[in-house]
Parts: sequence; C-alpha cells; structure tokens
Amino acid sequence: MKHNNNLYKVYGINGALSIMNSESCIIDKIIISSDFNVKKNSNKKIFEKYRNTIQTLSKDKFKNKYHSSRTQGIVVYFNYKIYNYIPDDNEDRANQCYIILDSIKDPQNLGQILRTSECAGITGVIIPERRSSNITSTVLQVSQGAFCNLNIIVSKNIKYSINEFKENGYWVIGVENSIDSKNWYEMDMKGKNIFVFGSEGEGIRSLIKKYCDYLITIPMLGKINSLNISATVSAILFERNRQILDYE
Amino acid sequence: MKHNNNLYKVYGINGALSIMNSESCIIDKIIISSDFNVKKNSNKKIFEKYRNTIQTLSKDKFKNKYHSSRTQGIVVYFNYKIYNYIPDDNEDRANQCYIILDSIKDPQNLGQILRTSECAGITGVIIPERRSSNITSTVLQVSQGAFCNLNIIVSKNIKYSINEFKENGYWVIGVENSIDSKNWYEMDMKGKNIFVFGSEGEGIRSLIKKYCDYLITIPMLGKINSLNISATVSAILFERNRQILDYE
Repeated sequence: MKHNNNLYKVYGINGALSIMNSESCIIDKIIISSDFNVKKNSNKKIFEKYRNTIQTLSKDKFKNKYHSSRTQGIVVYFNYKIYNYIPDDNEDRANQCYIILDSIKDPQNLGQILRTSECAGITGVIIPERRSSNITSTVLQVSQGAFCNLNIIVSKNIKYSINEFKENGYWVIGVENSIDSKNWYEMDMKGKNIFVFGSEGEGIRSLIKKYCDYLITIPMLGKINSLNISATVSAILFERNRQILDYE
Repeated sequence: MKHNNNLYKVYGINGALSIMNSESCIIDKIIISSDFNVKKNSNKKIFEKYRNTIQTLSKDKFKNKYHSSRTQGIVVYFNYKIYNYIPDDNEDRANQCYIILDSIKDPQNLGQILRTSECAGITGVIIPERRSSNITSTVLQVSQGAFCNLNIIVSKNIKYSINEFKENGYWVIGVENSIDSKNWYEMDMKGKNIFVFGSEGEGIRSLIKKYCDYLITIPMLGKINSLNISATVSAILFERNRQILDYE
C-alpha cells in the first residue's frame, strides 16, 4: 500500500471519532479546546487510547487558531491512506460496488458523494489523478467521516482501472444525460458493478464512455434539466439498494 | 397572492436566463459587465425585451462590485413571489406532489433540495416560517434557477398546511431515520402526495410526525449512518419517479 504523505485536518466530534476509530487513518495530533470535555463524552475510552497525541489549548488560543464555528472544540490532524491501485478485496461480496467519478471539480460535491457512497454501502470511489478535485481536508470534512470506511483510489489511468475491474467480473455502467440511454431503474444493478459518473457540466468523457458496458440515464421532469451530480449519485445508488433489498 | 418585498440577487447566465424567462419573477435591474456579449448570446431576444433594465458597467467596475468568480459577467436583481398559502392549482395533475421541509437550517442544502425537486417534477416546496433557513439570494443561487418553476410556500403553521393538503386528497408521507418505518420503495408513491422531511440532526418534529399518514425510511448500509438531507430527498423523489414511469 502506497502511503500518501499529506497531513489532513478534520474538525468536529463526529469526524474526529470516525478517524480515531478507523484503521485507515494514522493520527498525528489531536487539538482540543480547554472547554471540550473529554470525560463527559461517551467515547472516553478512545480518548484515553490517544492521550499522548492530545494537545489542549486554552479556549481563546483554540478560537484564535481555528476560526470555524463548527469545530466543536476538536481538530484532528492525520495521515490517510489513498490508494493508487485497486486494493485486493478479501471479502468478495456478491453485490460489491465501486463508483468512478470522471472529473468532479467541486470539493463540496466530491465530499457529499463520498458521504452518500458510504451510506449506500459502496466499497470504494475512484477518481482520476488529473482533471478532478484533489482529496483535500475540505473534501474529507464534508464527507463527515465517510472516507474512513471507503477505499479511495486515485487512478493515473481510468481506462486501465476499468479494465482491471472488468477482469474481476465487474460490469461497467455509465450514467449520463442522454435520451438514448435506458432508464436507470431498467438496469439490473445487482451483482458486481462499477458506476461511472461524469463531471458537472460535461458528463463522461467519450474516451471513457467507450469502456462502459451499459449506459443509463435519469430523465428530468423539470425545465432546468440539470440535476446536481451528488443528487444523481444518490438516486442511482439507492435504486441499486432497492433492487438488492427487493430481491432478497 | 401576497408579494414578498425582498429584492433578490442571482448571478451567472443560467440563473439569469431562468429569471428573465420566468413569470414568477419581476426584474428590478440587470447588471452586466462590458465584456458580456449580449449579441453573441443565443438568447438575444430576451435581452432585447429587458433592454431598459440593463445597466452596463466597465469590466473593472463590475469586478470590483461583484467579487465572485462565478458571475459570468451578469447579475440580476429581482422580486420573487413567495406564497404564504398553498396556491390554487389549475392543472390538477394525477401525480401532483409537494414536499415539506421541517426546519432545514443550511442554505446550501435548501438550495440543492429546490434544484432536485424541480428536476424531479415536484410542484412546490413548503418551509416553516420559523426554525428554517430563510429563502435568501444564496438559496436561490444554489438552486440554479429551479425556484422559478416551483411554488415556494413559507407556512406560518405546518400542521395547518398539512391539513389543507389532506382536505385536497393528498397523502402525507414522513421520511425518517427509524428501523420501525417501512422501506421507502415499499410505499406506493403514485397519486397525490406530500413528503415531509425533517432537519439535518433532529428529523421530523414529533408534533408534525403525528400528522403523517405513513412513515418511511431508507436503511443505511454504511457505518456513519447519516445521509445528507439533500441526498435523502433525491433518493426519495426519484423512487417516486421510478414508480410513476414504471406504471405507465
């Protein structure tokens, strides 16, 4: 596993706890404000485990250093493993699913998509090394700790990644904005799949689209005709969950 | 119709065109940067219609006044009709649908939900007068012009609004985070419905929940167990569309 050397920073109690409880994060330091009550917290044990990495700042110093009103008095600095290949999957589940985000530029959208993916039980998210928002602290913050339970893969070559999935028995389903594609719910989404989503304005690049086994679309019923990409991802992933639950 | 006296401001060409083409907006003024080419735009006619309200600023002055990089050289000031009651519906469609947002505090979420609702063909969105993000320029900006095609209703009393819908033959479906509710896709969403969504942290208030005819939930498959409210709305509304399309 290649370790990415960036130091990330996430604030707020929920994010902090996700990171402290995660095997995929290595904690560098935890900064708390003097008015943050570790003992009051039901997660006393985990704070005890990390006591040597905790630094307490006076309320004023903490406030001066971290201006955001949303810190809740805790900030965690950590290393997080980002893959540059598809990690071996020990638990090869029947409905294993990854998503590829072909060039999502907006960090808010990227963070929201990570969050939705985790809630929907997706195994991992692949983004291209170029033409995409990087995995920044903002992205991880927006994801609300979801990244701890996902494999995030930054791929040098999306076509190569897709082929690797195909060799492992995955079907590749492109989601696009086209009247020529079939309706999203008409696609059998059970089994091992990767969904490919394109960028906000331009959709999936044609050189990537060629690698898709199927193309599906969600017809719009309004006039503005532009569903936000993270809303699209949610509609697709929970349709997948519907099919899986309904089949069981 | 009661007219709300706030003057709103939306920038960017798509939002501007939605407003200029909408019957529910009254334009106060349109400010363009001298490098914004009205003639080049395929919507020359609509700019011609509004020529008396257009003010052109030099590129530098425009930049100084509107710092955002996303203005695309155009800013529109307008009045927008916000209802304080449920407007009569002349076209009483079979699958008419409204949503109630019980206390959504985050303007980004509210804007995204308006956008998703429009794309999903929803007729209107009801928010409570208190305990909710107000309808601000930020909310309208995030919605990408969606508000022009929606009835937005600010209700003094959500219970009263719900009863009004019930009297008009609507079913009230609360969406909540509870294992006791039935799975979202098991609910028949065809016909005239209102969906009630709760706030980010707290869900639907119990005094509102009592007014729901049905309660549904989307089970989470991850560990963080907190789907963003706008992702929840998307999953629910496109499940409704699936049922409608599949039935046709």
